[in-house]
Amino acid sequence: MSTSPNASPNPVIALLGRRLRLAVIGGGPGSFIGAMHRQAARLDDGYEIVAAALSSDPERGLAGGLALGLPRERCYGSGSELLKAEAARGADSKAEVIAIMTPNDGHAPLSIEAMQLGFDVICDKPMTNTLAEAQALYAAQQQTGRVFCLTHNYSGYPLVRQARAMVEAGVLGTLRLMQVEYVQGGRADESVLPGQMKKRWKEDPAKAGPSLVMGDIGSHAHHLLRFVTGLEVDAVAAEIGPIVPGRTVDDYAGALLRMQGGARAMFWVTQTAAGVENSLRIRISGSKGTLEWLQELPQELWFKPLGAPQQKFTPNGPGTLPLAARACRIVAGHPEGFHEGFANLYRDAAETIAARLAGARPAPLAGCFPNALDGLRGVEFIDAVMRSSRADGAWVNPAA
Amino acid sequence: MSTSPNASPNPVIALLGRRLRLAVIGGGPGSFIGAMHRQAARLDDGYEIVAAALSSDPERGLAGGLALGLPRERCYGSGSELLKAEAARGADSKAEVIAIMTPNDGHAPLSIEAMQLGFDVICDKPMTNTLAEAQALYAAQQQTGRVFCLTHNYSGYPLVRQARAMVEAGVLGTLRLMQVEYVQGGRADESVLPGQMKKRWKEDPAKAGPSLVMGDIGSHAHHLLRFVTGLEVDAVAAEIGPIVPGRTVDDYAGALLRMQGGARAMFWVTQTAAGVENSLRIRISGSKGTLEWLQELPQELWFKPLGAPQQKFTPNGPGTLPLAARACRIVAGHPEGFHEGFANLYRDAAETIAARLAGARPAPLAGCFPNALDGLRGVEFIDAVMRSSRADGAWVNPAA
Amino acid sequence: MSTSPNASPNPVIALLGRRLRLAVIGGGPGSFIGAMHRQAARLDDGYEIVAAALSSDPERGLAGGLALGLPRERCYGSGSELLKAEAARGADSKAEVIAIMTPNDGHAPLSIEAMQLGFDVICDKPMTNTLAEAQALYAAQQQTGRVFCLTHNYSGYPLVRQARAMVEAGVLGTLRLMQVEYVQGGRADESVLPGQMKKRWKEDPAKAGPSLVMGDIGSHAHHLLRFVTGLEVDAVAAEIGPIVPGRTVDDYAGALLRMQGGARAMFWVTQTAAGVENSLRIRISGSKGTLEWLQELPQELWFKPLGAPQQKFTPNGPGTLPLAARACRIVAGHPEGFHEGFANLYRDAAETIAARLAGARPAPLAGCFPNALDGLRGVEFIDAVMRSSRADGAWVNPAA
Amino acid sequence: MSTSPNASPNPVIALLGRRLRLAVIGGGPGSFIGAMHRQAARLDDGYEIVAAALSSDPERGLAGGLALGLPRERCYGSGSELLKAEAARGADSKAEVIAIMTPNDGHAPLSIEAMQLGFDVICDKPMTNTLAEAQALYAAQQQTGRVFCLTHNYSGYPLVRQARAMVEAGVLGTLRLMQVEYVQGGRADESVLPGQMKKRWKEDPAKAGPSLVMGDIGSHAHHLLRFVTGLEVDAVAAEIGPIVPGRTVDDYAGALLRMQGGARAMFWVTQTAAGVENSLRIRISGSKGTLEWLQELPQELWFKPLGAPQQKFTPNGPGTLPLAARACRIVAGHPEGFHEGFANLYRDAAETIAARLAGARPAPLAGCFPNALDGLRGVEFIDAVMRSSRADGAWVNPAA
Repeated sequence: MSTSPNASPNPVIALLGRRLRLAVIGGGPGSFIGAMHRQAARLDDGYEIVAAALSSDPERGLAGGLALGLPRERCYGSGSELLKAEAARGADSKAEVIAIMTPNDGHAPLSIEAMQLGFDVICDKPMTNTLAEAQALYAAQQQTGRVFCLTHNYSGYPLVRQARAMVEAGVLGTLRLMQVEYVQGGRADESVLPGQMKKRWKEDPAKAGPSLVMGDIGSHAHHLLRFVTGLEVDAVAAEIGPIVPGRTVDDYAGALLRMQGGARAMFWVTQTAAGVENSLRIRISGSKGTLEWLQELPQELWFKPLGAPQQKFTPNGPGTLPLAARACRIVAGHPEGFHEGFANLYRDAAETIAARLAGARPAPLAGCFPNALDGLRGVEFIDAVMRSSRADGAWVNPAA
Repeated sequence: MSTSPNASPNPVIALLGRRLRLAVIGGGPGSFIGAMHRQAARLDDGYEIVAAALSSDPERGLAGGLALGLPRERCYGSGSELLKAEAARGADSKAEVIAIMTPNDGHAPLSIEAMQLGFDVICDKPMTNTLAEAQALYAAQQQTGRVFCLTHNYSGYPLVRQARAMVEAGVLGTLRLMQVEYVQGGRADESVLPGQMKKRWKEDPAKAGPSLVMGDIGSHAHHLLRFVTGLEVDAVAAEIGPIVPGRTVDDYAGALLRMQGGARAMFWVTQTAAGVENSLRIRISGSKGTLEWLQELPQELWFKPLGAPQQKFTPNGPGTLPLAARACRIVAGHPEGFHEGFANLYRDAAETIAARLAGARPAPLAGCFPNALDGLRGVEFIDAVMRSSRADGAWVNPAA
Repeated sequence: MSTSPNASPNPVIALLGRRLRLAVIGGGPGSFIGAMHRQAARLDDGYEIVAAALSSDPERGLAGGLALGLPRERCYGSGSELLKAEAARGADSKAEVIAIMTPNDGHAPLSIEAMQLGFDVICDKPMTNTLAEAQALYAAQQQTGRVFCLTHNYSGYPLVRQARAMVEAGVLGTLRLMQVEYVQGGRADESVLPGQMKKRWKEDPAKAGPSLVMGDIGSHAHHLLRFVTGLEVDAVAAEIGPIVPGRTVDDYAGALLRMQGGARAMFWVTQTAAGVENSLRIRISGSKGTLEWLQELPQELWFKPLGAPQQKFTPNGPGTLPLAARACRIVAGHPEGFHEGFANLYRDAAETIAARLAGARPAPLAGCFPNALDGLRGVEFIDAVMRSSRADGAWVNPAA
Repeated sequence: MSTSPNASPNPVIALLGRRLRLAVIGGGPGSFIGAMHRQAARLDDGYEIVAAALSSDPERGLAGGLALGLPRERCYGSGSELLKAEAARGADSKAEVIAIMTPNDGHAPLSIEAMQLGFDVICDKPMTNTLAEAQALYAAQQQTGRVFCLTHNYSGYPLVRQARAMVEAGVLGTLRLMQVEYVQGGRADESVLPGQMKKRWKEDPAKAGPSLVMGDIGSHAHHLLRFVTGLEVDAVAAEIGPIVPGRTVDDYAGALLRMQGGARAMFWVTQTAAGVENSLRIRISGSKGTLEWLQELPQELWFKPLGAPQQKFTPNGPGTLPLAARACRIVAGHPEGFHEGFANLYRDAAETIAARLAGARPAPLAGCFPNALDGLRGVEFIDAVMRSSRADGAWVNPAA
């Protein structure tokens, strides 16, 4: 193994002489996404976890915090308690960054409070449950100037960034047609009756938001489409609802999209395709060629040019553009996966936050992680899909 | 190579002691689809080509017929001339089956005339350009009782038949979600200006029908969906049009479908995805699992069951059901392709026609080739897509 | 579908005004390979089957011939009887080409007799069972000047020809490393005891040759390697034998090869990889890049250049070279398979034979089908593998 | 995302109440493998890096250590200095585990010294350059009883462990045939002349060992074969050498293997397959089926049973066995890659070491990481390949 793409020095230590102090809210024992956030924070050594409020159940939260090796006094009983107590600590010990992975209804109040207390924030998606919350969070971020990173982690995959960079470089010519789909089978089992999902809060719209499938995965698909193409959705004609008999929460959505500039897109998401694992796929066609990427094979980006043989791009393989190269840790042919993509958001956020704290400018490519405006667009889109479906598929403008 | 799945005796010779006499109309020199039809007819030795009217240009037609080895007197100047002259020949020499591969506007008049003169018919798709023609053709077929085979050839692939058989056998449980797409790049090149397509008639709606993309490929996608699922389309919400600037014929369509029984489907077709070759794909999810098939890798049918490892079915591989086994000529691992699928329609039609002529019953599985009712449903669907798009995506019932 | 690569006129009819008259020996009812040869002969309409000796059992042979639609008097009781009787017929009715698909021990005597009687020959592989026979057959071909086509059909795949053409064009630079393998599972089942194979003659070395696995598939792998690289094997170090306990015939061989010019190759064949279908794979690395092809996905040829993204070539796709284009019948994206590759040999042989009969020169690219010299090299290689294995893996020169 | 396979509490903290203290030797600035080891150590939070000797150049080593956030006094100038100084520290601060990723000639002396000083060791592969060193290291490990983990990281991939577990469970029946290959293109470029490799020490046999290709990748392929099958190599017939003209170090090896119990294997490794990235592949056939795995698509394990459809296993997908489940951090469909596999070795070693320190028994499945005996077998195999090649391919017993 000859080259070492990611052996550059830790930018946080280079800027600050130490790691960022991170506090985590939510994601306690048994949580898949909590473990993922913490692994993402650790991988590139930009953060030290110093405090946690892992659960709304204080006992569970304490046990989880101790299991992370935290001292008892920094295992808090609630997110709000954590924020206030950490804000009151001395400058050389208090948390600087708050990572939020509670049920969705916690995202807005905790993020807003955190930014207003001076913390930078990394928050799980969807950004908020309601449009009003999304607007308030966005306003708070604009007002406070704090870094807000929304973990639409699929935008952290090297080849998703390669696709974006190729589109930006004009490799596809004028964009015309897109298709994005996110197909899962995790909610296909009909024997799981209403009220029986593993995470009970997912079935409560007050906690999980007005549309489960859109909050869980539709928001990812929408962000991926915007991230790669750089285009907003001008109008959507959609149908959404539960397809499994008896289910009370949405598990399917299909939509036709009219994109900014006139391109057209197909949008399809479901969690009830029995036997399918995690099939997030995007295809973008322009006047000069087509790009195709599938999350289950993230180490392959297909470029099908007009009139030349198809090409397969690989992470750090020949033709890797700078935005993608920055997201690769390893020589070509050694697969990076979900963790590394997730960690790329944490790393970019870390570099941006450390630069802010040091009064420096972050690397020019460090700022492509999803932010509060992306989150607002996502919530607007969910709202538009639901409005269109209620209007029997009428075309609806997400921004209106 | 140990077994010989397709070494059974020629059913036509077994029934009639000879091959069926076939006359071809259209598909002259330079025609891809003409060569394909004739190769499909020859592969399994069920037909002898005895007459042809290959071109609307008589000189070209004659040259083409002689190049097929036909005697001069059976190279006709037009389809209608062929039909009348062949009908007038003696019973032991005249054509029995007419294969029609003219521009689309010839399908209805030639098919109707042929059936009324007593011929059985094999006709290229789309069945007709207009709904009225489709209804008339279907009525003529019902009245005459002649065999009418519409070459939606993708239904001839072994694994498409395997998918249908698995759905019929209940392997998927209750069908819930489907996606079908047919994505090509053959019309992506913007430098081909209006009036410059290789086949000039394709740009003339009077010849090619009201919607080029739907006639060319949308009709295939629609038939494939019905063939595999056994379900009709109850309602469609669609957008269709040209996406390439300046183009006068449709090159893109997207639609949401409500299927008979409540399932939902996504439908996407285009001929302007630059660099894509011939990507016809179908996915069907039911309560017990998901099936996936892609025409560019036709030797793989994926079955993803709920709660068990994914399975890959192959033609003649383990688990092949009778409807698929009948469509395989060769031991597993030896790819069959487009020609063999096309030929399967010719073979099934030949067996059905020979049985009719012999007063016998064809093999029970010989009758699954697309027929006049399938063609009518296809034309109704094209019409519904266009009506919905004109109504800005309102839901439209194809049968109404 | 815009272009029509294979809509050129039938070259046999263009040269002779009629089809070639073909007689078939072997491949009777129940034979996979017999049906394949006849389908290959029919697909491109270069041959008319006029006579047959389908079986060593005269009754079976007669039934099979009648089922092909042949008249009773041209259904012969043995190959030798067929050759003599057809040779005695008038010039305007007698067979011109003999296709031989008997058990392997028939290949040499029938081919030699046929060529000496003036027939051109198409013969199944391996060419002969013994080295002496191979030398005699080659000498007879050289002496008579008749066309001899050996059906190493994998060399008929478009992308195998593309690979050869790319190597010839220097796209790979200097060849260094190769790997060829042919892995099947058809003889993996231990419950099939000695003497119980479906084709009984396969277990009789007098009929099937001294090494079953080498005759069945090793000869294909060896020819494929030579066909694509243009290089002979200078030396082989091998082990061969039965791997299934109790089996009396070889079912496995592995070898290291030193190729002409200094390249090195790995060679691996078996018929006992349980569950594997028909995995013939070749990889060729040169100083400028690597080519990879797998028979089970024949529509993909991978080119991995040094320092540029990997490319996927497809039949008739962008970058198709003339030798491959000639082997494609259809626009890119419509898979051709095993039948079409097989038929390409028949078509090339037909064009070459028709040109000989017409005193014309065949198209320059028509002559790449495997011939008697290729067959001799194949038998020499089988012999060398066995000699090396008997000498406990000592390096052996196939030509010595 | 419903389940959380890897949300179990940190076993090290559970056992010790803290992380293990790790010191790293080698892998300084610019080293790919150094960054990888440290990321692997961090991912699961079982270690805290407390000391380093990153480079044989003390200045470089100090800079690198500071960039890791280490205090100056624990940035050492050499590995031996680190070992002595850390051994002399107090029990509550000194390093407990030593990770060694120096050039290969450092592995033996540093590992032996470390174990003799009481440290547990994690060491990069190949274990040693010479057979004598390997035997000495193995003896030291046996004598000291310290944990020794050799980072043959491919054995950390979930589906490699699934393959091993399936073989152990008898899913394949009796093993018969294997093929393992490791094909790279990183040394294909002829313009890199002798003495010009990026890592200069790689061309010095005193540092990199007697056979570069075997040390770099052949040792991985050999270990993978043993790990999955549980079988030792009884005899090898090989050829090895440089294939690129002018090169002084081995870049190619091919071998036939006779495995314990009578199975046969093919072995092929090279670093000069231009354009190939990191293609480590293994196939295992037994009497009941075949397993296939390719490192470049690590999230797919193919099982091809005798007489049933092929199955694709995925990490944490249906059918995952306990040994594999333990190596998965995430729900099925979210790819884990090279980092996670590497980290699995660190995690298993951490759990084993922590258990040793706590006087507890580690989880029964924690002990499958490669150990000193595996390393010894690897060095014996390299030696046997070279002996066989020098003897012109004679069969050689690695253990003799």
